[in-house]
Amino acid sequence: MADPYFLACDWGTTNLRAWVVGGDGEVLASRDFELGVSRLGPGEAEARFANEVRPALNARSLPAILCGMIGSNLGWRQVDYLPCPAGLEDLREALATVADGVRIVPGLRGEGVAGAPDVMRGEETQVFGWLRQDEARSRGRHLLCHPGTHAKWILIEDGRIVRFVTAMTGELFAVLRKHSVLRSDASADDEASFDAGLAAAEDGGALAARLFTARSRVTAGGAAAESTPSYLSGLLVGAEVASVPKLLGVDLAQPIVLLGDENLCRWYARALSRLGASSATYDGEAAALAALTALQMEGALT
Amino acid sequence: MADPYFLACDWGTTNLRAWVVGGDGEVLASRDFELGVSRLGPGEAEARFANEVRPALNARSLPAILCGMIGSNLGWRQVDYLPCPAGLEDLREALATVADGVRIVPGLRGEGVAGAPDVMRGEETQVFGWLRQDEARSRGRHLLCHPGTHAKWILIEDGRIVRFVTAMTGELFAVLRKHSVLRSDASADDEASFDAGLAAAEDGGALAARLFTARSRVTAGGAAAESTPSYLSGLLVGAEVASVPKLLGVDLAQPIVLLGDENLCRWYARALSRLGASSATYDGEAAALAALTALQMEGALT
Repeated sequence: MADPYFLACDWGTTNLRAWVVGGDGEVLASRDFELGVSRLGPGEAEARFANEVRPALNARSLPAILCGMIGSNLGWRQVDYLPCPAGLEDLREALATVADGVRIVPGLRGEGVAGAPDVMRGEETQVFGWLRQDEARSRGRHLLCHPGTHAKWILIEDGRIVRFVTAMTGELFAVLRKHSVLRSDASADDEASFDAGLAAAEDGGALAARLFTARSRVTAGGAAAESTPSYLSGLLVGAEVASVPKLLGVDLAQPIVLLGDENLCRWYARALSRLGASSATYDGEAAALAALTALQMEGALT
Repeated sequence: MADPYFLACDWGTTNLRAWVVGGDGEVLASRDFELGVSRLGPGEAEARFANEVRPALNARSLPAILCGMIGSNLGWRQVDYLPCPAGLEDLREALATVADGVRIVPGLRGEGVAGAPDVMRGEETQVFGWLRQDEARSRGRHLLCHPGTHAKWILIEDGRIVRFVTAMTGELFAVLRKHSVLRSDASADDEASFDAGLAAAEDGGALAARLFTARSRVTAGGAAAESTPSYLSGLLVGAEVASVPKLLGVDLAQPIVLLGDENLCRWYARALSRLGASSATYDGEAAALAALTALQMEGALT
């Protein structure tokens, strides 16, 4: 087996995924840690990385490259956002050295909606990795969706992220499911109820009114209370796919790239399909590794 | 002082407002009880009414008429909804006697959005009371908004409620302010930040994306974190007023009737004004009393 060459980490809000990579870019070991930045006390990222992550992977002295929320004020330290448009080479030039042999990938900042800025940390690395995974992707225009707590819709042109918009869809789902009159412990995997929610979303407008249908269809319409989470999921995802891409000035005519968690992407693909849009799903963690590897190994050669 | 004649109660989710009314319709006493149906154990409405409400108002043997969520499955007992269109006379004919001398006003059910029914309990009584407060209101068309946890937009024609839509605006505000990444203990009374939220709401579409601006304007845009609740309030109220009336097929050309809590109505008036719409605000509890009085006193004469 090849010697380990570096340690790559996608260090997000809830989870840390780490890979030990060899000199030819091959993965020698990988592991998940329940050590997202939301679980870190102030100032303890460096020590926990040294005392928990490195020993568990027998990677005490390897150079390391980290992306994600670890570069925020909740993480190791705040790394300035890069402005859009930006490509992988811009990230490489802006890598922040936070300790001996440890570098953090900066997030991106762009023009959002309603005059406010928009920001991402971690998704940009996955996007550039996805672009690297197939040379042909670096040309032309792509519309990419990264579902999640704060879903991102990202417009890519000739290998660079030119603009993006964040939608709080996942967080809306979580707080309504847990804390509102729509609260329910039932699962959200009923396709028929998800589809009913998609239909109710229509063009995504008047969401506060459409949300009440998740209540009234049960209390006055005879729907089963256990179907509420699936319906709510369909309503929120349907509203997002019908309205957020328009904020980027694009339609859904070309295939949408879905990048991220496979199960979540499956629901988004279903929602897009209902609008007549096609999509293809790609693994976000594999993409993150591809970008971190490119940043580390090509960076070492220059 | 006149003899007490009956007991009127607007018994909602969080609160109970009770009035002792004399034979000429004058209020002899009134009192609020923290005894909303969300605070009642199963089956205990009748006993708590007899043991707490009646004695506190020295009204042990008066006939009583109740409206609001007390007619739901969480209250005294479930009273069937009346279908729209409906007027005060329809409510009178459908009053439900739940105990000796105690009647409950039914709620209304109508065609909502997206094929789901919509429902109300309590607002209909306030609306019919508002209509009774001025004879001229019983003719023509009115668009009425009742702000709250579940805000209602109600279309009235010739004294009858013909259609309505509920928006979960107040509940969205509460759960996001308390449980989401937008959580904050700051007050929501900053007019400039409310106005910024109104502006960001635009046409009310793509709400999940606009909500993220409440985060990014602070983390990347330099806005003060304490302004988040006011901005969030403006964003949600602005999205509602810009989009929900359209679901009823009406525009904001004629003055909007705002009925309910005075402070809440003030923010809605501000949001409407920004869209060029005029409004007038009326007290919801006074309106409820007017309707309950009409139902009880005129009912006694027939």
